[in-house]
Amino acid sequence: MTVIAPDLSADLVSVAHEMAEAGRKAILPHFRSVGLTADSKETVRFDPVTVADRAAEVAMRAVLAQRRPQDAILGEEMGQQAGSSGLTWVLDPIDGTRAFLAGMPTWGVLIAVAGAEMRPLYGLIDQPYIAERFEGGLGLARMQGPGGSRALATRPARPLDECIIMSTFPEVGSAEEGAAFHRLASQCRLTRYGADCYAYALLAAGHIDLVVEAGLQTYDVQAPIAVIEAAGGVVTDWTGARADMGGRLLAASSPEVHAAALAALRG
Amino acid sequence: MTVIAPDLSADLVSVAHEMAEAGRKAILPHFRSVGLTADSKETVRFDPVTVADRAAEVAMRAVLAQRRPQDAILGEEMGQQAGSSGLTWVLDPIDGTRAFLAGMPTWGVLIAVAGAEMRPLYGLIDQPYIAERFEGGLGLARMQGPGGSRALATRPARPLDECIIMSTFPEVGSAEEGAAFHRLASQCRLTRYGADCYAYALLAAGHIDLVVEAGLQTYDVQAPIAVIEAAGGVVTDWTGARADMGGRLLAASSPEVHAAALAALRG
Repeated sequence: MTVIAPDLSADLVSVAHEMAEAGRKAILPHFRSVGLTADSKETVRFDPVTVADRAAEVAMRAVLAQRRPQDAILGEEMGQQAGSSGLTWVLDPIDGTRAFLAGMPTWGVLIAVAGAEMRPLYGLIDQPYIAERFEGGLGLARMQGPGGSRALATRPARPLDECIIMSTFPEVGSAEEGAAFHRLASQCRLTRYGADCYAYALLAAGHIDLVVEAGLQTYDVQAPIAVIEAAGGVVTDWTGARADMGGRLLAASSPEVHAAALAALRG
Repeated sequence: MTVIAPDLSADLVSVAHEMAEAGRKAILPHFRSVGLTADSKETVRFDPVTVADRAAEVAMRAVLAQRRPQDAILGEEMGQQAGSSGLTWVLDPIDGTRAFLAGMPTWGVLIAVAGAEMRPLYGLIDQPYIAERFEGGLGLARMQGPGGSRALATRPARPLDECIIMSTFPEVGSAEEGAAFHRLASQCRLTRYGADCYAYALLAAGHIDLVVEAGLQTYDVQAPIAVIEAAGGVVTDWTGARADMGGRLLAASSPEVHAAALAALRG
């Protein structure tokens, strides 16, 4: 486990917020812009989602180049860059590009910093259009948004049949993965789709009980894991092991809900 | 067709905005409030979604009592009230209560005013948490939100295989209705779920091409129909007839997309 001194901690959080601001500035002009969803053959190469995605990663990497040149970087758009500090920044400039395309404000900018064994130490989920920011780790668990600032805390444990579960698409990965998901979802009170990374924020903020996804990348999961763990939740893969590198994710509000969901997924 | 003089038109729009403000004020304290999602047997009668729903309708009816006592009212929570003007206000204080329960900002306050034969003359879709308001009819087609104010206009027509389609739940009503929906959705480029009434706003704002729902009430459809028609879209039931009283809804960005979707729904 990586130990972070208070000074370094404050520096990392400050850098993460600076990156989130840079991301917002780079992306917002492209969200819901005219012609965004033009997807004729000629314009595919210049898809504005990709433009916004890359512009945000460039802007965030520029912050790191100035503030934390010693750290490694793993970004969705521009790959890996080595470092010497033992810390790795993990960036997904637009998680939820299909939501972005459809104008839905449920995409997010994901920023995390990982220590040894790529375990996330801190994560931030930013929704620029709503101006909401959720962060957790390094002693923090809080959100800022239109309603002001508040602490993040997951919901108290409850039986599955009182739980709200979310996933982005009803298919949830392969046919086998989908069957496992629906076995679990059928035991829950309410299933909602289409929330993308915003679902993790809702889980950390205590509004829902479960998020289940499959086929995820490292940059999809690092920030959500840090935020949810800091808020009191439990995140693993579908076998109960750590999911720091992605794959199949099971995020739960409490150890009890996690255990019940894990059993249902296994069938 | 009801003819509305300019003075009356301005008055109706002003009243609708006053009602939307009253709705925001009544609802926002309950959104994401602690204990909102408590649903033990003892608290069901005091479900805070219902509390917010009723408080908002009371607040909106108070505006009407003062400003437009001569108009009829049809509200989701408090039923019908007769009037003498030939105009009927149609209110759904919280459309998307399940989204509200889950903390998702895709619920909305729906306000419409209908003329002869309950045809909506003007509609307003308000999302209080994001502070977004979409309105259409009586010469208006515009939105206000975090990005400022802009005109509403639906997307240009395109083939179904380039269309984005939305519905709230993948089941979409009965088994037969679900089959028709999926026959259409399978021909589209992208299907997204979980947007509730926010999907109509995205359609009117030019971000998506189709919204298909079933089992709707009059108060679910009146405001969306007015907003989408004012933005250039087409809304009917699944047979191509007007859907002013609810039921099965097909909302499309253009007559061409509407015709193609109608054919696919019929199979």
